[in-house]
Amino acid sequence: MAQTGSVTAAVLVIGDEILSGRTKDANIGYIADYLAKIGVDLREVRIVADEKAEIVAAVNALRTRYTYLFTTGGIGPTHDDITADAVAAAFGVAISEDPRAIKLLLERIKPEDLNEARRRMAFIPDGAELIENRISKAPGFQIGNVIVMAGVPAIMQAMLDAVAPRLSTGPRLMVETIAAGQLFEGDYAKALGEIAAANPELSIGSYPSFRDGRFHNEIVVRGCDGSLVAAVAGAIRELVHRLGHESTKGRV
Amino acid sequence: MAQTGSVTAAVLVIGDEILSGRTKDANIGYIADYLAKIGVDLREVRIVADEKAEIVAAVNALRTRYTYLFTTGGIGPTHDDITADAVAAAFGVAISEDPRAIKLLLERIKPEDLNEARRRMAFIPDGAELIENRISKAPGFQIGNVIVMAGVPAIMQAMLDAVAPRLSTGPRLMVETIAAGQLFEGDYAKALGEIAAANPELSIGSYPSFRDGRFHNEIVVRGCDGSLVAAVAGAIRELVHRLGHESTKGRV
Repeated sequence: MAQTGSVTAAVLVIGDEILSGRTKDANIGYIADYLAKIGVDLREVRIVADEKAEIVAAVNALRTRYTYLFTTGGIGPTHDDITADAVAAAFGVAISEDPRAIKLLLERIKPEDLNEARRRMAFIPDGAELIENRISKAPGFQIGNVIVMAGVPAIMQAMLDAVAPRLSTGPRLMVETIAAGQLFEGDYAKALGEIAAANPELSIGSYPSFRDGRFHNEIVVRGCDGSLVAAVAGAIRELVHRLGHESTKGRV
Repeated sequence: MAQTGSVTAAVLVIGDEILSGRTKDANIGYIADYLAKIGVDLREVRIVADEKAEIVAAVNALRTRYTYLFTTGGIGPTHDDITADAVAAAFGVAISEDPRAIKLLLERIKPEDLNEARRRMAFIPDGAELIENRISKAPGFQIGNVIVMAGVPAIMQAMLDAVAPRLSTGPRLMVETIAAGQLFEGDYAKALGEIAAANPELSIGSYPSFRDGRFHNEIVVRGCDGSLVAAVAGAIRELVHRLGHESTKGRV
């Protein structure tokens, strides 16, 4: 990917249930779409197990490389919810019960039901800002450039909405997609590679899919300069049109 | 996750199209399911951009930590397909046109259509074994413990079928799932945590989902010792049953 955006991000998914295959992740694609729309360039994703050392290492590797790190998962009340502890450890700060978080929990939980396990959801690393969610009330938080969210998609999405207004954003990427029709990638690869080499400030990709026994390819042009994206997409459309008139017997 | 399996793996997804949100990854969940079924413990996933330095760094970080590393994406004929080059660089070996791969390509491509771009799909790092695929014929490969596969799901799946018989596998994990019915996580978190602490050789997780305005929780017990998994799952079922008879007014 060309370094097209100035504000970058990584996502860290914390969850044994994804690695075991039990749960199919729905958050990565949602966050990728969301960040692209607001002008944040998602550049790396990791999925790690519910193990403190793994989470600490990944948080520290990613928060130092990108403008933002978004985490999902591991902030509920059960024993396998260790994200807040791990993030506090990654930052080397203490973690304690946060009266603001207790207040939010009490909007949904009766005082007599606020047991020890539920109080754990109010343990927030020192110096973090809370991220409210309208669904379960149990908050996420932001510490430094790390944004800690729930794993349940509906709640994660509410937290993303809550935190988005406070994010720095860069230029939104302009994107054009060209359907390659009946062409195979091998038919246009050389010419497309030359166009890509001549436009290093753009990200140009060729994406095959396979259904009904044949390939369906699309070429995507992305960049910050809308007029350049349009011009290069136009040139690729002409290329595809021209090659479409030639004999295409290749199969891949 | 408790270190439950003796054969471990990571997955590295190479693809701008996933990070940009354009394509929703379908391979991670498929591979996670597949590896669980054959007794390989998936422990980490990364998604990186189509950038050589990023791929090299991730390949070297992951291949040294796990029994196997599976990569998806970036082995087609276009300029953005740089996975084979990057893997060769990660291993410090040369890459050259492989006559065995050319032969496979010619099963589908006419000799006059085997242009320079398509020949790139036959560039294989020195010392690698090919992984055939029945769909497009363009092979993946295995070098050392790194298994390089296509990104198109149907082709990746064919490659996984081709390589699976030669993988070492560990014990298959036994898995039991207990529906928590009307209970909230906060209702059983303390008792479940005590059961988990007493059984460190098992992986016990509590997984909430949210639909129709309320939580639906499941508890999952995984481990290699089937009778222990069954016994602990039985204890958790009793716990859920008992708590279900008590008043549960908590909301999270």
